Amino acid sequence: MKEPKRSDCPISFSLEIFGDRWSLLVLRDLAFRDARYYQDFLRAPEGIATNILADRLARLERHGVIEKEPDPNDGRRQRYRLADAGLDLIPLLVDLTLWGGQHDPESVFPRPRLARMERDREGAIAYYRKRARA
Amino acid sequence: MKEPKRSDCPISFSLEIFGDRWSLLVLRDLAFRDARYYQDFLRAPEGIATNILADRLARLERHGVIEKEPDPNDGRRQRYRLADAGLDLIPLLVDLTLWGGQHDPESVFPRPRLARMERDREGAIAYYRKRARA
Repeated sequence: MKEPKRSDCPISFSLEIFGDRWSLLVLRDLAFRDARYYQDFLRAPEGIATNILADRLARLERHGVIEKEPDPNDGRRQRYRLADAGLDLIPLLVDLTLWGGQHDPESVFPRPRLARMERDREGAIAYYRKRARA
Repeated sequence: MKEPKRSDCPISFSLEIFGDRWSLLVLRDLAFRDARYYQDFLRAPEGIATNILADRLARLERHGVIEKEPDPNDGRRQRYRLADAGLDLIPLLVDLTLWGGQHDPESVFPRPRLARMERDREGAIAYYRKRARA
């Protein structure tokens, strides 16, 4: 199960877990879009394929970034949430939002929201952490 | 050259440019390790393959994240540097360092350096921006 590490670099370690085009979108859905169930991730606008989604969920769970448990209202369904290591990725998700919003010339992300997020990055992180724990 | 966007999400936009296991290591080498020449990137401990390196350098340049110019001391060599959009990724590189350093149980990244970086994230970002511009 365990792959050999490429190096001792903490950035390389991070990328070995979520360095791809999809993992951070799954984490975005958990942190910013209240996704909880498998179907919620499939509904995201990027149209993730089921095999990629299943692979990324399993990988993130294996590395302790997300957790799942049987839904208390329907034991046949799994409910996902950010684990502590996943909550610690909220700053990174905020930075990815800021960078994309600032550097995409076709961005439709609301400017005032972006400016507010940049001005009060710590406040935004605290807000989403609290929301994700709720 | 231009691929259709997956969505309007700024996180998705960011990942379409550098969401893979290697791009952010190339940017790390430019931002933190004073890499300037093609050979410098090949020397990084992760052992990037030449075809992957060439692909990522071209992609990052195409998206305005890095720039290259003939080396003033040897016009046959290309010298790389972070463009403005690349300098704006330094916060993300700092966050990737912090997350990896905190969550890799086998991390050998010096604890005091990590703690200092966490305590004064803004100072670390300013330091590396200035260094990358020099």
